[in-house]
Amino acid sequence: MENKDYTVEILEIIRSNTSPGIMRSRLEDYHANDLAEVFPQLKISERRKICRILDLDMLSDIFEHIDEQAAAEYLDEMDIKKAAAILSAMETDAVVDVLQMMPKEKKNLLIELMDDDARKDMAIIASFDEEEIGSRMTTNCIMIRENLTVKQAMSSLVDQAAKNDNISTLFMVTEDNTFYGAMDLKDLIIARRESPLEDLIATSYPYVYGNELIDDCIERLKDYSEDSIPVLDNDNKLLGVITSQSMVDLVDDEMGEDYAKFAGLTAEEDLKEPLKESIKKRLPWLLVLLGLGMIVSSVVGLFEEVVSQLTIIMCFQSLILDMAGNVGTQSLAVTIRVLMDESLTGKQKIELVFKEMKIAFSNGAILGILSFVLIGLYIGLFKGKTFVFAYAVSGCIGASLLLAMVISGAVGTLIPLFFKKIHVDPAVASGPLITTVNDLVAVISYYGLSWIFLINMMHLVG
Amino acid sequence: MENKDYTVEILEIIRSNTSPGIMRSRLEDYHANDLAEVFPQLKISERRKICRILDLDMLSDIFEHIDEQAAAEYLDEMDIKKAAAILSAMETDAVVDVLQMMPKEKKNLLIELMDDDARKDMAIIASFDEEEIGSRMTTNCIMIRENLTVKQAMSSLVDQAAKNDNISTLFMVTEDNTFYGAMDLKDLIIARRESPLEDLIATSYPYVYGNELIDDCIERLKDYSEDSIPVLDNDNKLLGVITSQSMVDLVDDEMGEDYAKFAGLTAEEDLKEPLKESIKKRLPWLLVLLGLGMIVSSVVGLFEEVVSQLTIIMCFQSLILDMAGNVGTQSLAVTIRVLMDESLTGKQKIELVFKEMKIAFSNGAILGILSFVLIGLYIGLFKGKTFVFAYAVSGCIGASLLLAMVISGAVGTLIPLFFKKIHVDPAVASGPLITTVNDLVAVISYYGLSWIFLINMMHLVG
Repeated sequence: MENKDYTVEILEIIRSNTSPGIMRSRLEDYHANDLAEVFPQLKISERRKICRILDLDMLSDIFEHIDEQAAAEYLDEMDIKKAAAILSAMETDAVVDVLQMMPKEKKNLLIELMDDDARKDMAIIASFDEEEIGSRMTTNCIMIRENLTVKQAMSSLVDQAAKNDNISTLFMVTEDNTFYGAMDLKDLIIARRESPLEDLIATSYPYVYGNELIDDCIERLKDYSEDSIPVLDNDNKLLGVITSQSMVDLVDDEMGEDYAKFAGLTAEEDLKEPLKESIKKRLPWLLVLLGLGMIVSSVVGLFEEVVSQLTIIMCFQSLILDMAGNVGTQSLAVTIRVLMDESLTGKQKIELVFKEMKIAFSNGAILGILSFVLIGLYIGLFKGKTFVFAYAVSGCIGASLLLAMVISGAVGTLIPLFFKKIHVDPAVASGPLITTVNDLVAVISYYGLSWIFLINMMHLVG
Repeated sequence: MENKDYTVEILEIIRSNTSPGIMRSRLEDYHANDLAEVFPQLKISERRKICRILDLDMLSDIFEHIDEQAAAEYLDEMDIKKAAAILSAMETDAVVDVLQMMPKEKKNLLIELMDDDARKDMAIIASFDEEEIGSRMTTNCIMIRENLTVKQAMSSLVDQAAKNDNISTLFMVTEDNTFYGAMDLKDLIIARRESPLEDLIATSYPYVYGNELIDDCIERLKDYSEDSIPVLDNDNKLLGVITSQSMVDLVDDEMGEDYAKFAGLTAEEDLKEPLKESIKKRLPWLLVLLGLGMIVSSVVGLFEEVVSQLTIIMCFQSLILDMAGNVGTQSLAVTIRVLMDESLTGKQKIELVFKEMKIAFSNGAILGILSFVLIGLYIGLFKGKTFVFAYAVSGCIGASLLLAMVISGAVGTLIPLFFKKIHVDPAVASGPLITTVNDLVAVISYYGLSWIFLINMMHLVG
């Protein structure tokens, strides 16, 4: 990283003997995130000093950049009134996170000491479920009555700007707070004082309802690529906004979750996670997979007789199972991503299944022929068998590879489509089921083909 | 989705017979993204009509929301001067994408007709490689000289606001355009006219250099959660900004890529992708995996003798290989995510390896015991063997399951750490190698243990 690390500079300022006034103005030159990164390196007394020196605006910004566990700890170190004041000035969603980390009594005391507005905003956000988009909004936005003049709107903005950060889009409401439309601040700034406000307002501006599920609306919100999207309650009253910074977090979370589920974890993990938590996140999948694996094993057991007559074929079982699994995984990954687009028609779904099968067939044909040639050569040269024997076996391998791959491609697409249909998250449920089905398909086609072709028809042994 | 779909409304307006003036003011009430979604449903003549009716500002917004392939097509339908004017008003990064979709001559003609500023901005962005953060910036930001008064700054802002969308943070530069600091628009709005500008400027504001790799700086930029982060050239001159909307796209792309790589695709795919492209994206991995699978098969071949004496053990090969693979995948997924944090110390890496092994050991012990009990019961009851025989075999399975899982956990962590060290993307390279190593470990520990314990020591056959 070429950028310089501000940590050393900031530490130097804090540990210097300059007056509070100078120190404040020097610290205010830094970004809240850089100041936040210094906090864990400070002694309690130094943190207290900073909290006395900086103003509430800056402190609340800093605390928004500290992770909730640590923030709760630092707030605990200071005077409870100061802590309540900092919380009152923070973004509401961050406050909710921090308070959850505190013991119940302390939490209630702090909520009591917070200012009325902050408490009210918190209650609104807390009323939404974690999975609902409303839980991720901020009430920190500019709301302006729709029937003002440009000049009145400007002064209403100046009044609210001190307490609200998200000012680049202004939201217009009617008398009873019903959402009316939105306006770019830039248009207001360049508008002539006497022109009517109405011309600047987009009345069909996009919005979401607070109780929509994040999963359902995130793709749509991403498309608008706006600074902030208004969030309404069920009576169409404006509650707050989803900012594009929250969108970054939302997209990050959503994708991270998909990624984790895909890898067979029940949720994302990080380095600091305690051992017990990690075990808990992974064990459920492993248990399911073990159970399914046992089913596969008992099916393999049905072919014990075949293998005992022709042991060489068991050497290539892992190859065919692995390849079927790989193809299934590819199809699954593509299907899950395609399914994120809610508006898929039935015809498109059928097309997808056929396309996946066509891809699997093409790749399967290439790999099947390759296996036929190479494995035949290998058995003939290194296993001391005749080339007729060798190519009979490798022919079976090539053919079952192709068959297993085509079926895996279809299964890898159909299973997530099915889970989506019955409203089960396809990223979670599909993986193990696909592995099992593909294993079964591969085992049955490989040993079945070997049994019919090699043993019953060609009467090979060895 | 509860929100109403504006498409029908918009189509109705366009297909009505109202005058251009009314139509424009009605269409301007909609979000550019919603208008963009209507475009593919229009006839050429209707698209031409809209492009005559709406102003450049709105049209350029709409074209930013149309995907580049379609946008190039629509621009081709209209008068070339109009097309050049729309391009001149669009965000530079979007223009670059659209122009790439056009035939060379048309492209050069359009660039010639675009206005000077747009052409200059395009040249700057085009100078960066796709992997560099500079390629994702926009030059669309407000730059203000650092030595102005509040009043002068305000009027400089009003001058620039008409042509620039990202106004919530203002960037201060010195005479020669060197980056000096940043200021929130909201602070400027509420500042007293006579107060010095200097107090409002954060001079240690975060920034990136245009030639930093996206991979290297994205985590840091996310942490700042700012509307826009300034991008500098190597002489510290301000070139443009990364907006939080671009951040949403960047995070989406990065995570999508990781996800795709993890699933064994060389890149993300979508529904419209032609068959040939899809095959090309998937075949390389499958070929690698086939080659590695053949290696595993030849190692399994070494144990042919063991299996021919005791065929029952081959039934459980797939179980042990699959479980080792699953544990390896879990460790790999966690390690890749942890590695995104660039600042990992050597000690943390060692801790991670040990932690993964401990998790694998705990889970392996639980699953191993479970397999020992259940599989023993299964063999005893359904395979017509004595319980001594059954539990000897299932003991081997349980023990090799534990061993294979612990080693897989370690391998799943060490291999990505190693690839990271030698600067190879761990998400791409680790998967197949881990599968192969884990297969080998599982095969050798399972058949090896069976050979020593069941055949050499207990002299079992069957």
